[in-house]
Amino acid sequence: MTKGEMVAETEGGSGQRADRAFWAVIPAGGSGTRLWPLSRAARPKFLLPLLGQRSLLQQTAHRLGLLTPPERTFVVCGPAHAAPVARQLPTLPESNLIVEPSPKGTGPALALAAAIIARLDPDAVIGSFAADHEVAYEDAFVAAVRVAIVAAEDGSLVTIGLPPTRPETGYGYIERTDEPVAGCPEGTAYRAAGFVEKPDQERAEAYVASGRYLWNASMFVWTARALLDELERLQPALRTGVEEIAAAWGGPDQDQIAAEVWANLAETTIDQGVMERAHRIAVVPADLGWSDVGDWHGLGELIQRDLDGNAVRGDLIQSDTRNSVVWSETGRLIALVGLENIAVVDTEDALLVIERGSAQEVRRIVEQLKQLHRTSYQ
Amino acid sequence: MTKGEMVAETEGGSGQRADRAFWAVIPAGGSGTRLWPLSRAARPKFLLPLLGQRSLLQQTAHRLGLLTPPERTFVVCGPAHAAPVARQLPTLPESNLIVEPSPKGTGPALALAAAIIARLDPDAVIGSFAADHEVAYEDAFVAAVRVAIVAAEDGSLVTIGLPPTRPETGYGYIERTDEPVAGCPEGTAYRAAGFVEKPDQERAEAYVASGRYLWNASMFVWTARALLDELERLQPALRTGVEEIAAAWGGPDQDQIAAEVWANLAETTIDQGVMERAHRIAVVPADLGWSDVGDWHGLGELIQRDLDGNAVRGDLIQSDTRNSVVWSETGRLIALVGLENIAVVDTEDALLVIERGSAQEVRRIVEQLKQLHRTSYQ
Repeated sequence: MTKGEMVAETEGGSGQRADRAFWAVIPAGGSGTRLWPLSRAARPKFLLPLLGQRSLLQQTAHRLGLLTPPERTFVVCGPAHAAPVARQLPTLPESNLIVEPSPKGTGPALALAAAIIARLDPDAVIGSFAADHEVAYEDAFVAAVRVAIVAAEDGSLVTIGLPPTRPETGYGYIERTDEPVAGCPEGTAYRAAGFVEKPDQERAEAYVASGRYLWNASMFVWTARALLDELERLQPALRTGVEEIAAAWGGPDQDQIAAEVWANLAETTIDQGVMERAHRIAVVPADLGWSDVGDWHGLGELIQRDLDGNAVRGDLIQSDTRNSVVWSETGRLIALVGLENIAVVDTEDALLVIERGSAQEVRRIVEQLKQLHRTSYQ
Repeated sequence: MTKGEMVAETEGGSGQRADRAFWAVIPAGGSGTRLWPLSRAARPKFLLPLLGQRSLLQQTAHRLGLLTPPERTFVVCGPAHAAPVARQLPTLPESNLIVEPSPKGTGPALALAAAIIARLDPDAVIGSFAADHEVAYEDAFVAAVRVAIVAAEDGSLVTIGLPPTRPETGYGYIERTDEPVAGCPEGTAYRAAGFVEKPDQERAEAYVASGRYLWNASMFVWTARALLDELERLQPALRTGVEEIAAAWGGPDQDQIAAEVWANLAETTIDQGVMERAHRIAVVPADLGWSDVGDWHGLGELIQRDLDGNAVRGDLIQSDTRNSVVWSETGRLIALVGLENIAVVDTEDALLVIERGSAQEVRRIVEQLKQLHRTSYQ
């Protein structure tokens, strides 16, 4: 029996899932500062082919294509990235590209997408997945989303939670319970006890040890109705605003209304603005081979290493060099001697050399560039 | 009283020095492998402007210009470097560029120069100084050479020896005595007890502690006659060979004779071939602010450092980076994060990142490039 047959059988059994269409939303924001100098404001992480031939955005769209057609897929991005997104995703209908006038965080972005989709399909189930993450296990991803859909149809706001593999202080966590709220042959969704923000080291270690905390990778599944209802309760101004924009969407006043209303919306993330205070939250634990491809150290972990532990994209000659990352866009010969745990990133106009343990600190370089108004490098 | 007047007085006193002209020879060999990728076979260290606007060769010629005019200055180089040497030293007479048909070490190079000069001036005093070394104190250099000239006129083969500042295992040493062999107001030359080859670490430390050992920087002063006499005794075939070439020099058969005779000469350095076994050797101890600009670690020591100890030739933005060297030929932005004691050398076609303590190991990269027949990078 194939997985497809299993799903069909389950759908027949519940008598519900065939009725509701699944819609995908890809918020494509953030520039991926920690992958500078490869990522830039005009060439953000999600547009880059970091792992394989396709960009992270294209891989995300491909993954969601296993669940729903392009006609039910929306991308939310900023004005600067509308053209490259449109070109990288040629099958995406033009009306499915939501260009937010200015960055306001994931709260307004996902709320607007939900309001627009709700007008097309009031019973829509929506899944939202960041444009710039890596998911190695596609089958597991599809299965987890199917479970999340079942739980969402039941009214929950659902998150896919990842078993933590290290006490990471850079991510938020979700506390799970053992109380099932929905299930299907692919797995079970559990009631979530709550969302917690980025912890300190000690707390992160306790979270990992407990086995009850999962990484929050901003993978959400909900019905448009459930999300809009929670917005009504928690963020009434945001709910009103996105409904107003959605009403004008596709019409002659779309851009004018969107610009006026959007400007007055408060910035918020979906985590802080909704999930941390929502009533019915559920979580689907799933190991997806996930990574946020966050920095050069992390990217080095995702690339195949040679016998010396070096992860190389480029023309390297080395002597006595181990566990290092080389990424070159220039084709130049790169020679490393007597080094360990460094990353070298070689682009046409900028070169970065960084100790891998300091990989997060690339931000400081970008901050300095901002202060110096060296805009061409940002 | 100026230094010039002092010398004039001394010359008057000895009644000899005014009779003998001083000739300068600059052997311009070696590619400076340890400064790869800046130095290449076609662009050796001596042709590079490593310290200031002028190349090391130009600085050497300038320094010798304080002692003798271009007409009495000779440069010995290989065929590949004849054109750039001629262009970098526009005042050097064309006939003063000795192009050796193939590299044979400093022994044949200096022997041939002496034989050619001896035919122009049998009483010549000749000083030989490498094309690719740094001398910070020009006044001290001029004074030391004047002392060496006095000792050479007396028949000694004279070396200028540098007080060692560290137990360097990469240089040869000269053992001095306290027995003066010649002197003038600028200083004293002492009988040398002997030349010793590159020592091991323990021996190098003993040398430095003793105060009796000086670095051999291949700075030699001798009369043409004294050198040719010692060659007659120690290297008779070399003496015969260079006399034969010198006899044809400037005539219609110069290149043919030179090619034929040169091909049969044995390779040798002047240190091993002559100085280690010579009868009358003397040394002038002198602190010249000398460096052989040997590798990226050493070059970093010669460049002014910023408050974090970084020596920078380029467009650097850094965070938490100390005691590092940055050399860029490309104008690219170079960002360093969380690093200490590394050197980054950025050229159009190749990039080197090296731990400063491994600076000598750049050779291994060049060796690998040779094995891989990647000639454009050598």
